Amino acid sequence: MKSVLVTGSDIDESYLSRLRDAGFEVHNPTQDLTEDELIEELRGKHTYLLGGLERATAGALESADELELVAFLGVGYESFVATDVATRRGIAVTNTPGAMVTSVAEMTIGLMLSLTRKITWMNGRLKQGLEASPGKSSDLRGRTAGIVGLGAIGAQVARILTTAFGMNVIYFSRTPKPQLESDLGISYAPLDELLRSADVISLHVPTTAETTPLIGDKELVRMKETAILVNTARAEVVEPGALRKALESRSIAGAAYDGYYIEPLPSPKDDPHGLLSLADDVFIVTPHVASLTHGSWNGMSELAVESIESFFANGTSDRIVNPDYTQHRAK
Amino acid sequence: MKSVLVTGSDIDESYLSRLRDAGFEVHNPTQDLTEDELIEELRGKHTYLLGGLERATAGALESADELELVAFLGVGYESFVATDVATRRGIAVTNTPGAMVTSVAEMTIGLMLSLTRKITWMNGRLKQGLEASPGKSSDLRGRTAGIVGLGAIGAQVARILTTAFGMNVIYFSRTPKPQLESDLGISYAPLDELLRSADVISLHVPTTAETTPLIGDKELVRMKETAILVNTARAEVVEPGALRKALESRSIAGAAYDGYYIEPLPSPKDDPHGLLSLADDVFIVTPHVASLTHGSWNGMSELAVESIESFFANGTSDRIVNPDYTQHRAK
Repeated sequence: MKSVLVTGSDIDESYLSRLRDAGFEVHNPTQDLTEDELIEELRGKHTYLLGGLERATAGALESADELELVAFLGVGYESFVATDVATRRGIAVTNTPGAMVTSVAEMTIGLMLSLTRKITWMNGRLKQGLEASPGKSSDLRGRTAGIVGLGAIGAQVARILTTAFGMNVIYFSRTPKPQLESDLGISYAPLDELLRSADVISLHVPTTAETTPLIGDKELVRMKETAILVNTARAEVVEPGALRKALESRSIAGAAYDGYYIEPLPSPKDDPHGLLSLADDVFIVTPHVASLTHGSWNGMSELAVESIESFFANGTSDRIVNPDYTQHRAK
Repeated sequence: MKSVLVTGSDIDESYLSRLRDAGFEVHNPTQDLTEDELIEELRGKHTYLLGGLERATAGALESADELELVAFLGVGYESFVATDVATRRGIAVTNTPGAMVTSVAEMTIGLMLSLTRKITWMNGRLKQGLEASPGKSSDLRGRTAGIVGLGAIGAQVARILTTAFGMNVIYFSRTPKPQLESDLGISYAPLDELLRSADVISLHVPTTAETTPLIGDKELVRMKETAILVNTARAEVVEPGALRKALESRSIAGAAYDGYYIEPLPSPKDDPHGLLSLADDVFIVTPHVASLTHGSWNGMSELAVESIESFFANGTSDRIVNPDYTQHRAK
């Protein structure tokens, strides 16, 4: 019988039952694990569903002699799993792409409307007993959205903005995607042109050397004074000093972030970037929670369990991120 | 030459030019008018575009001897225009329905997402230097929305929620609308059933004797504990004491309002309804600004100017709300 370590407290019991039904012995410590505890827990386990906050460090993977698969719950496994060590030891690593598209796209629209319609600002003023006369705002309909990064999330945001909100959508990505263009009725624009034309700019790029930061002084000055920036990617995609300058000088109208440069977030008075003390009509922020919905977690759990089932039934999985692991497989 | 009084400061100059080009002499005092000032301004005017905050009172209309048309900028003319007096004096009254559909529908989605995804709550906590760990929220996709009132705005909200957000939409209205049902892929439900089944309930009914209030204790207890109520209609559609009780006892999850029972809003400590002191994860509110966008105002101005042009060119307009005025017409 194969045995599986499942970490974290957020995986629904139904998925654990499904693993048991598929013949796995399931261990699910729900507390946060130290590296030493993880090493201990991994002893004798054949697979490891990483759903907690711990890291699958080099040390943990080196000593996991029976381990064949790390199924990471989420997309950005890079900072959680010492993938090079896994590969060298013949351990496959999977992630769960796609499951959070809906929740991140919906959060993006929510942040966009909260900022452009000043919902958060007005509510905050009124709850403090202050007057809130925002003046006229602008509808999304008929205006131009610029989507930066047309992966699954960017495409879903584009789809919502064209079909439901009647926006004109342009996008920038390293590689133009003509099929998606015609499916969605959107068009490609070089980044500079997108920055100059869009009324609402939404960032959906992965974190790479080229995208951290992608948006700095040079890019922000190209934006319209009436334009807003929505960032549900990673904070680091935008250079914080440049953003603060642009917001303080009102050279752009506002920014909305899901996720900040420092997490957990500091108090505004301790924020080295000075964005958290800006008023809510200019800057709003949530912790990095766009994917934290029941739908996303169930979707990710589904994919992780499916990867485990497939890996042990068929010897592989569609979601393996380190295909070279096979070259180092002892068995 | 016909002369027109245009009140308010928010009508774009291009619409005034268009009236001049159509042969009208345009008077546009932009300050707020008292009743006496309005009586004075209406002297000798043939038409009156009511775009300010003043009321076309019985007194003002009684003394407006040349007046043939009051073109009200907005939908809810009832509290602004003494329509019975206008009718008796043979004065036509028009309003501008439809122009605010986009902006109110978009605001509705914004409030819905701000509340369900706790955007406003998280931002408020973080800006105060407090921790904001909301736990998992729920996607809109796959859940059920209940639209109460399927006029132009309710239908547009339904359209957005089905096409872009993949929600299952049910609606209640006095008269079932089978054509809209099949166009939008939605289905009718009696109010009780809608209240019991929906995860998100959005109110889009006009203010009538039956709808003030439509939602009280009896209706709120039918709602799911996880459901939220979005009210961009009028606050009075919901009985405030019943709502407060439901929110405080968590028998429903939250409510989001555009417009309050008292405007301008009181300070939370002076709020007789006690809703303004509830936390932002339970109750959020904006002043009644859902229609306050450039798009709405231009749309309303367009319709009002078109009504004036049509009335004086053809003797009538599609948007006359008091057709009986003709029976009292002297000329």
